[in-house]
Amino acid sequence: AQEKGLLFRCTAAVGGGIPVISPMINCIGQNKITEVRGILNGTTNYILTKMFSLGDSFENSLADAQARGYAERNPDADILGVDACRKIAILSALVTGKLLPTEKIHTEGITKIRKEDVLSAEKIGKKIKLLGRCVISEEKMSVLVAPFLLSSDEALANVSGVYNAVEVIGEPIGNVMFYGQGAGAGATASAVVGDLMQIMRAGTAARAPEFEKTDEFLSDFDSFECQSFIALSGVTEDRVSKIFGEVQFISTGSELCFITCKMSEAEVKSLIASAEKLGGELKSRIRLL
Amino acid sequence: AQEKGLLFRCTAAVGGGIPVISPMINCIGQNKITEVRGILNGTTNYILTKMFSLGDSFENSLADAQARGYAERNPDADILGVDACRKIAILSALVTGKLLPTEKIHTEGITKIRKEDVLSAEKIGKKIKLLGRCVISEEKMSVLVAPFLLSSDEALANVSGVYNAVEVIGEPIGNVMFYGQGAGAGATASAVVGDLMQIMRAGTAARAPEFEKTDEFLSDFDSFECQSFIALSGVTEDRVSKIFGEVQFISTGSELCFITCKMSEAEVKSLIASAEKLGGELKSRIRLL
Repeated sequence: AQEKGLLFRCTAAVGGGIPVISPMINCIGQNKITEVRGILNGTTNYILTKMFSLGDSFENSLADAQARGYAERNPDADILGVDACRKIAILSALVTGKLLPTEKIHTEGITKIRKEDVLSAEKIGKKIKLLGRCVISEEKMSVLVAPFLLSSDEALANVSGVYNAVEVIGEPIGNVMFYGQGAGAGATASAVVGDLMQIMRAGTAARAPEFEKTDEFLSDFDSFECQSFIALSGVTEDRVSKIFGEVQFISTGSELCFITCKMSEAEVKSLIASAEKLGGELKSRIRLL
Repeated sequence: AQEKGLLFRCTAAVGGGIPVISPMINCIGQNKITEVRGILNGTTNYILTKMFSLGDSFENSLADAQARGYAERNPDADILGVDACRKIAILSALVTGKLLPTEKIHTEGITKIRKEDVLSAEKIGKKIKLLGRCVISEEKMSVLVAPFLLSSDEALANVSGVYNAVEVIGEPIGNVMFYGQGAGAGATASAVVGDLMQIMRAGTAARAPEFEKTDEFLSDFDSFECQSFIALSGVTEDRVSKIFGEVQFISTGSELCFITCKMSEAEVKSLIASAEKLGGELKSRIRLL
């Protein structure tokens, strides 16, 4: 496309039928984008939605998704976050011009989310969503795929079932979200035909976007900062407070659940290791958006 | 723009910073659109959000919106639906090519929504939103602005505060939604600069959209069909059932609240008139999406 001076479009590659690539290039490219994030995989969003609406386990919800044809018999690419990883790589490239090798993107799936975590999330009015995120600051970017706890007033928290959504945050536009069916013959056909029409209309004066294949601007993941939800057994509240500093306890008992303050991945890892050294057992850790 | 062969863009005229006009033309124009609808006025959405979160009256919520600068001292253009009416006229024109005179669009505001209606809505798990809707079927369109009761699993139901959103329903794409800040200096600036850049890039081979000013394809509003929430005092359940046929009662007592089955505007009006003839007093009527 670059050689022939034609547009290149691959709308259906992210978010199925949702028009996201063209508006990102043509309508909001003039903003200073600080983050692009999204629910980029309908299968995992369906599973998480079921876990929240029915209080069911991951395994049962996956089986339900398979029975309905939303998940494949080998569901690994979806549930391990691989598919979402490819998609956030495309979105990151659109925003930054830097195309990351997917193996450089920290990727976690939803297989470790437990019924108990869903209950804890509900207790504090939050949802769990598998997000792809590309956070940009000072010429560097952090890119990851992982389950996140979202306040229910976040736009992405209310994206349910097999729907996908991409949220872009920029200056001065604020938050913008694109929402629609992330898969299926109809949505995909709409995206492909829309792309063809744009390419035709643009004619030969068009420019395909130029991506530089590089991970030079990728931040070390150990420096990524966020709050965390942590579930630990085998330790006392007192010990947790001593190790993690100021935390917000959600539940106490044989399993302690709490929210940490904002800290780097390196710091969280080291504090969890400290707790484990003192007999604690990590049951769950989910990042907060 | 047509004479000079240039693009015409007015993105900020609908939904502030949300890129909606360009994607509607360039990305989903290949679909058969059956409806475009949206939360097109941030002031009224802020007021309705407050009424739901605080259980407060319309008057108090309006005063709060004015204190925060979201509503003007003379708030009529917002609260009477006039602003939303202008916006659905633009969206309708984009989808159908027919530009309606705004005075032909049935327009209701939110001034008649009572605390009691909010409570009834919550009882049945619904929200109330001021929607602009353009419903297209068989070469005809119904266009209106009015408060609607929405199930909380509708994408538009979760659009809160001063945010705006436009939802397009088409074949084969399904439902697509664009969400963002509907007003404010930053969002508007982003939209205007985005428009200028698109016009520049398109060059002189571009075509401004051609709108025909006509109401020829507008359906008679009396034939618009929907379910209704109705609150009536001074009548018995028995009488309501006799007049309205099969209804779903939400609350009984001095004020009867119920949901009718789907019927035309003409029919609802005539049934309400029958109830009034028998001593009933209409307290509220809100359409269901």
